[in-house]
Amino acid sequence: MSNLSNVNSITSAPENSAGQTAVDELIADMQQLGQRARAAAGVLACASTAQKNAALRAMAAALDAQRQALEAANQQDLAGAAERKLDPALIDRLALTPARIDGMLEGLEQVASLADPVGSVSELCSQPSGIQVGRMRVPLGVIGMIYESRPNVTVEAASLCLKSGNAAVLRGGSEAQYSNQAIAKCVAQGLSEAGLPEYSVQLLPTVDRAAVGIMLKMRDAIDVIVPRGGKGLIERVSAESDIPVIKHLDGVCHVYIDQAADIDKAINIAINAKTQRYGTCNTMETLLIHEQIVDLVLDEIAAQLAAHGVEIRACERSKPLLRDAVSATEQDWYEEYLAPILAIKIVNSSDEAIHHINQYGSQHTDSIVTENYSLAQHFLRAVDSSSVMINASTRFADGFEYGLGAEIGISTDKLHARGPVGLEGLTSQKYIVLGDGHIRQ
Amino acid sequence: MSNLSNVNSITSAPENSAGQTAVDELIADMQQLGQRARAAAGVLACASTAQKNAALRAMAAALDAQRQALEAANQQDLAGAAERKLDPALIDRLALTPARIDGMLEGLEQVASLADPVGSVSELCSQPSGIQVGRMRVPLGVIGMIYESRPNVTVEAASLCLKSGNAAVLRGGSEAQYSNQAIAKCVAQGLSEAGLPEYSVQLLPTVDRAAVGIMLKMRDAIDVIVPRGGKGLIERVSAESDIPVIKHLDGVCHVYIDQAADIDKAINIAINAKTQRYGTCNTMETLLIHEQIVDLVLDEIAAQLAAHGVEIRACERSKPLLRDAVSATEQDWYEEYLAPILAIKIVNSSDEAIHHINQYGSQHTDSIVTENYSLAQHFLRAVDSSSVMINASTRFADGFEYGLGAEIGISTDKLHARGPVGLEGLTSQKYIVLGDGHIRQ
Repeated sequence: MSNLSNVNSITSAPENSAGQTAVDELIADMQQLGQRARAAAGVLACASTAQKNAALRAMAAALDAQRQALEAANQQDLAGAAERKLDPALIDRLALTPARIDGMLEGLEQVASLADPVGSVSELCSQPSGIQVGRMRVPLGVIGMIYESRPNVTVEAASLCLKSGNAAVLRGGSEAQYSNQAIAKCVAQGLSEAGLPEYSVQLLPTVDRAAVGIMLKMRDAIDVIVPRGGKGLIERVSAESDIPVIKHLDGVCHVYIDQAADIDKAINIAINAKTQRYGTCNTMETLLIHEQIVDLVLDEIAAQLAAHGVEIRACERSKPLLRDAVSATEQDWYEEYLAPILAIKIVNSSDEAIHHINQYGSQHTDSIVTENYSLAQHFLRAVDSSSVMINASTRFADGFEYGLGAEIGISTDKLHARGPVGLEGLTSQKYIVLGDGHIRQ
Repeated sequence: MSNLSNVNSITSAPENSAGQTAVDELIADMQQLGQRARAAAGVLACASTAQKNAALRAMAAALDAQRQALEAANQQDLAGAAERKLDPALIDRLALTPARIDGMLEGLEQVASLADPVGSVSELCSQPSGIQVGRMRVPLGVIGMIYESRPNVTVEAASLCLKSGNAAVLRGGSEAQYSNQAIAKCVAQGLSEAGLPEYSVQLLPTVDRAAVGIMLKMRDAIDVIVPRGGKGLIERVSAESDIPVIKHLDGVCHVYIDQAADIDKAINIAINAKTQRYGTCNTMETLLIHEQIVDLVLDEIAAQLAAHGVEIRACERSKPLLRDAVSATEQDWYEEYLAPILAIKIVNSSDEAIHHINQYGSQHTDSIVTENYSLAQHFLRAVDSSSVMINASTRFADGFEYGLGAEIGISTDKLHARGPVGLEGLTSQKYIVLGDGHIRQ
């Protein structure tokens, strides 16, 4: 663990000797956690599908048997949250209701029923030298997950990491600490009942922030960090981490209605992309409309948006055509509203639309509505986003809708995983070479 | 370009105002270079295969026509190198002989003849909602290459980046600066003859090291850094870069001769893996032998190694069985000799061999020699290396031998690319969704 020598600077611990001792102990605990995770990862990489599924189902059984203990632990967290007068929305996410526990059990069964990505071999073919070369899918090793105060994410993270053959180091929000500990006990029980190392899934030893700082420097022990939560959390984790991060920050998604669009499809897609849900990252935030089709679609779209209570921020050209619209500022084109607000811009050409998307978008999800075959093909190539769509609502950008069976998150990066990330995103591929005594000439 | 505000600290420029002006100018030049690269990348992402191949062939024609200019520029570099009394091996690599220029032309033709990875769509299939979801291969964007003083790498880097649809920012060794500039002129000429942006491939404006420091902070302008050269260069680049790096550091490769090995295959593979070439990263550095087969293979292997002049560093158990062997220290198991030296260790079991490889290896390439089917399968899963082989020489770990057609390098990382990296490693995949007016329910 080469990178722990200078972590003191990030732990903001008191500098007196008692504080220093506490920091040293925490570092020692974290090193032990890292070594246990690495050892567990070695076992998990070779675990059979049956064994991993047995562990997932044993976790579900343990959670089901411990409902009372889970609810009692959750009460402690809820009491703490009430005492600290936390935001009601946070308190709501924190609550472990019987229905949410049911949801965790169903989630475990779902992950158990997914195909195991580990060990699958693709592209195996013979080379001129006579060797066969292929690629085998393998776990990444140890995944570090950092998330906010939704205790069910502890189960979700544990199950996805396990199924993909990875050990997990989990850091949930401190508000959920007692719930997370109770859940982690059930997870450990499931693992050991299936004969897998109980250290396959570990919570950090403390919810002290200093532990997160140390975690993000443990390059030798953790292979990738997956933060889940608000933009603030993800930005902090990305800035501080020495370990590669799988993340997405913004979802500034566009629908472009081309001059060759089918009118009904255009209206339906625009309304669905904006209004089906407001707070999701794949919700449309800016609607681009070709000037030649404005007369045919804008009034109807505006009327339907108004019926949904959506506020419009309009460009200079569309503003006069819209009642009650606010003038859009330059900043509006960058905005992820996550709210019933939509920016609308009229463009001269498809090129202007593509240019606008690549300039102001967040490389998340962008859709064109057109019946023009060549333009549709060009849009797929030219728009530099993790999901590019033709005649479909941006709301489809989702691991389940894409058939991945599960979703860890949506990556807007280009290296490793791009777009919705399922189990495959938690794996890598190694080359395998099958010979029969072959030597290189 | 958000990350350039604090680069002064890494430029080690003088702090007087004249020095500061020079730094400011360099930063401005680098920002312009970054903007030009980003703009060129947008065009290249949509360039046709025919256009990219035309540019590659026009580059070859330009280089062929400019042989005299290339050789004159190279003379300047060689004179500088002689004056600075540089290492003869470096001077040899620096020389642009007519044969090396021929090699560059052939390399360009080879890359032109490779399949274009960009735009290929895989896994397109229908989902329950009716949308079709697939993945399209896309360029990464802008690749930054940093390499030592072999001018032919300038052509190689330019051609691989272009074929994979990426813009390139190149920083070759300062010793080759005049040669690289002459080559870059031909590259630019080829690009513009094919109607592609001449800024698709740019050299840094100066060989001043400060420019590299700035380059490694240009996260908005450069998507990935590929260093090529010695371990020192790669370590420096990795440590300093804010941009993801595709790299490998060490090749501590193993052959494990199992008790169920075919004797002839074992001996041939061991000798080939060590002696076919000594200085390559896929050369075996440690030979592991099961105790049950030592008597049948060790003498013959030792005799053949002796005939090749290979020095043996032997474990405690093998030392008494070997004439002239040196005792191995703990450090030997970590060593990448890149020389006629081999560490040999006798193990009790295949598990000990696998454990040794995962503990001391560098996750590069490791091979088992065995006729035991179940063990071979287990070895493929359990050895955590970028290439894992059965009954084949580690020397096969190579982009050309694997059928990739070209090799940028060999990655021992797990994220993004692992093992030999060809054109595909310079690309990513985005999701494409084809609908017909589909909206989410």
